[in-house]
Amino acid sequence: MLDFSATYTDQYQLAMSEVYFKKGQKDHTAVFDYYFRKLPYDGGYAIFAGLQDLLKIIEGLRFSEKDIEYLKEQDFDADFLEYLKDFKFRGNIYSVLEGDVVFPTRPILQVEANIIEAQIIETLLLNLLNFQTLIATKASRIKLVSGDRALLDFGLRRAQGPGGYYATRAAIIGGFNGTSNVIAGRDFHIPVSGTMAHSFIQSYDDELSAFRDFAEGRPKDCVLLVDTYDTLKSGLPNAIKVAKEMEERGHKLMAIRLDSGDLAYLSKESRKMLDKEGLDYVKIAASNQLEEDVIKSLLEQGARIDIFGVGTNLVIGRPNGALDGVYKLAYSNEKPRIKISENIVKITLPHKKQVYRLRDSAGKCVGGDLIALSEENEMNEMIHPFEPYKQMKLDRLKKEALLQPVMIGGKSKIEQKSLQEIAKYSADRLAEIPLEYKRFNNPHIYKIGISKALKQERDNLIDAFKK
Amino acid sequence: MLDFSATYTDQYQLAMSEVYFKKGQKDHTAVFDYYFRKLPYDGGYAIFAGLQDLLKIIEGLRFSEKDIEYLKEQDFDADFLEYLKDFKFRGNIYSVLEGDVVFPTRPILQVEANIIEAQIIETLLLNLLNFQTLIATKASRIKLVSGDRALLDFGLRRAQGPGGYYATRAAIIGGFNGTSNVIAGRDFHIPVSGTMAHSFIQSYDDELSAFRDFAEGRPKDCVLLVDTYDTLKSGLPNAIKVAKEMEERGHKLMAIRLDSGDLAYLSKESRKMLDKEGLDYVKIAASNQLEEDVIKSLLEQGARIDIFGVGTNLVIGRPNGALDGVYKLAYSNEKPRIKISENIVKITLPHKKQVYRLRDSAGKCVGGDLIALSEENEMNEMIHPFEPYKQMKLDRLKKEALLQPVMIGGKSKIEQKSLQEIAKYSADRLAEIPLEYKRFNNPHIYKIGISKALKQERDNLIDAFKK
Repeated sequence: MLDFSATYTDQYQLAMSEVYFKKGQKDHTAVFDYYFRKLPYDGGYAIFAGLQDLLKIIEGLRFSEKDIEYLKEQDFDADFLEYLKDFKFRGNIYSVLEGDVVFPTRPILQVEANIIEAQIIETLLLNLLNFQTLIATKASRIKLVSGDRALLDFGLRRAQGPGGYYATRAAIIGGFNGTSNVIAGRDFHIPVSGTMAHSFIQSYDDELSAFRDFAEGRPKDCVLLVDTYDTLKSGLPNAIKVAKEMEERGHKLMAIRLDSGDLAYLSKESRKMLDKEGLDYVKIAASNQLEEDVIKSLLEQGARIDIFGVGTNLVIGRPNGALDGVYKLAYSNEKPRIKISENIVKITLPHKKQVYRLRDSAGKCVGGDLIALSEENEMNEMIHPFEPYKQMKLDRLKKEALLQPVMIGGKSKIEQKSLQEIAKYSADRLAEIPLEYKRFNNPHIYKIGISKALKQERDNLIDAFKK
Repeated sequence: MLDFSATYTDQYQLAMSEVYFKKGQKDHTAVFDYYFRKLPYDGGYAIFAGLQDLLKIIEGLRFSEKDIEYLKEQDFDADFLEYLKDFKFRGNIYSVLEGDVVFPTRPILQVEANIIEAQIIETLLLNLLNFQTLIATKASRIKLVSGDRALLDFGLRRAQGPGGYYATRAAIIGGFNGTSNVIAGRDFHIPVSGTMAHSFIQSYDDELSAFRDFAEGRPKDCVLLVDTYDTLKSGLPNAIKVAKEMEERGHKLMAIRLDSGDLAYLSKESRKMLDKEGLDYVKIAASNQLEEDVIKSLLEQGARIDIFGVGTNLVIGRPNGALDGVYKLAYSNEKPRIKISENIVKITLPHKKQVYRLRDSAGKCVGGDLIALSEENEMNEMIHPFEPYKQMKLDRLKKEALLQPVMIGGKSKIEQKSLQEIAKYSADRLAEIPLEYKRFNNPHIYKIGISKALKQERDNLIDAFKK
């Protein structure tokens, strides 16, 4: 659906690239880290999403003739524009696999390429990964409280324009089962479903006639919206009547949908009314400003809801709306690089790196990831990146390397997975993370540390700067 | 850039359409109102945006062969799919002009079409208008506090995926001057600009060399980022040095950019240092988590900032993230329609309608919009839609009709305007709205009322329902 071009970037990427080009620096290799500093939703973890899209888009990223023409009008240098005509990303990307559980500070992905290519893809990379990670994390939280109940994305109408297309994709990675978004269903092979709108019922003179027509027209996946006039006095009795008429024709009413009023009370009453009529197979769907806290609370109060339709709060990742992912230079011009800051947590980590998930001898995740230099082998301790007196011995722990080569020489090296496979991987990875990191209120803080050698390299660079 | 298809919709639009088709109701005319219930940002007004995009996309909206194939797999009826092959929107749209100031409850736009066409475009319409209106309103608020200072959108990297494309467009309507977003600049003819990133400076062994190369490579629009090491001790002295070297070559440093630390203090100190060196022409740009409240406070403290770069908070419309715009049936099957609700503010208004802005005899906006039946002429009073004892005489007021035919028979009838023209119109319209509605804290509530005849029609329908 989206026709991405290499102009899907910030102007300064091109301005800097032009200078690198003019100053003979276009071929020097740079390494950038992608990571975020703060977990969204005050939660204890995030779900990494967007990688497969990103790699596919990067593989095809070019400046079209129209782009070059436009940049010419913008007064870019003619030789530089000649160079951009042949632009494609020829670098390497090392990344955590899509769907994995990720934490702040540590690199999720590293780009290794000539500095112009690495700069030009920055904006696109941040744009896609920040957003999908934000939404997959939101979906995962909703999934955590919903157990085996079905979760459907209903958010396209309130999404941030075409952001909704990727929101739907990310929701599936986080654990959603389906969507109302037809174009996302078409392109990402997501089960698409829906119910009916109030307008359908309003367009008839009475609710019963509307229900009857709908049940006759869509007998296989009929869901009746019961709150247009009065849920328990009109909607339910009419739905029951139509369900029985459907039975006579050999069909089954799939579900009713509640979209207003107290969903806990109405779902319990609806369940009773349906069961009393032998309609225990009719499911109850609910929607209306749902999110994880509301769903948790509804279920704690015994709500009898089988299907949750979640819209706005999911697709815009409320309340955060954005993940603060950054892309920081770690190596260039044959030297490790750091960014100095008065704020120590903003000092970056130099060099090409590897990240390891720490496990005990039985393979169980111990709640920590280690960041080390990529060529290191013997890491015996992990040091807090900003509070060096906090250390941890690693002798008895296994180290699982997380950054894998996902693109080499501009070609994707990952196995193409369906969203359902990515979601399954994500669920398995999340299941390994101890419960205390998945708590909503004041979750335990997952440990992130650096190796002694990495700390030494960083401290050397800080010292050199001080001189 | 975006390849919209008619599957950019919710599944239930197609399910309902299939039933209308099968039940012989496909040709009945429906009227839907687009409006929102709550102003974003606890503000007193909103800026309507997205119309020109929407009309263009609707004109070209079709089901492709791929779409039809997909819907076939989704088990839609073969005859219905034949019908969809010829789908295009052939209806009428009446709307407020893009950029106008709008308020809750009252229709911003009306769709009049056969019910299938009206349903299929619903999701797209809400998706585009809700989001752009949200962002144009945010931009307008930022503009209100920034006066004549330049405002630049820097948000693409933190935007909700390709939502960022439209966020940039809407920002210009709300009063922004430019963007860093190259592809939006290319397609919407928006001035594109940028500065440099920290990575550029880090990739050099020292800041001065980086500044020198950048100034030589981009002499016409050189903005130097001065906070990589130490703003006042390193960044400014180096920028001043380079500015003087540029002067020797007949160039001028355009600006410096501050991106961390206390922007009020640093901008004042920077101004002094620049002025002392005769560099009073060098502008000061600032960025870092800016939004209207922060900018207001910085300026109150005398910050010497000429250019504000606004990112995340603008492009995701923080803190709301979504506008709650709805699309409600007002007329179908040759009858006026309403949606009943226990919550009176959710009861809809029946019939095709017109909306009027009320002005005194001198043409001055009096702070109220009237909703009336479209065929009414003599409206002598305005009644509060939910509190009927609140009434207002209209004898001496002029009424400006706001809903204009913008699409007739599926063809756009609006004059194509540039974004700058729309922004100008928006600024003029906003200037007409009295100040008290533009206050940030506890703004005055703009009056929305209905005509006596519309009230009568609505009350009749409520009475009929009660029976």
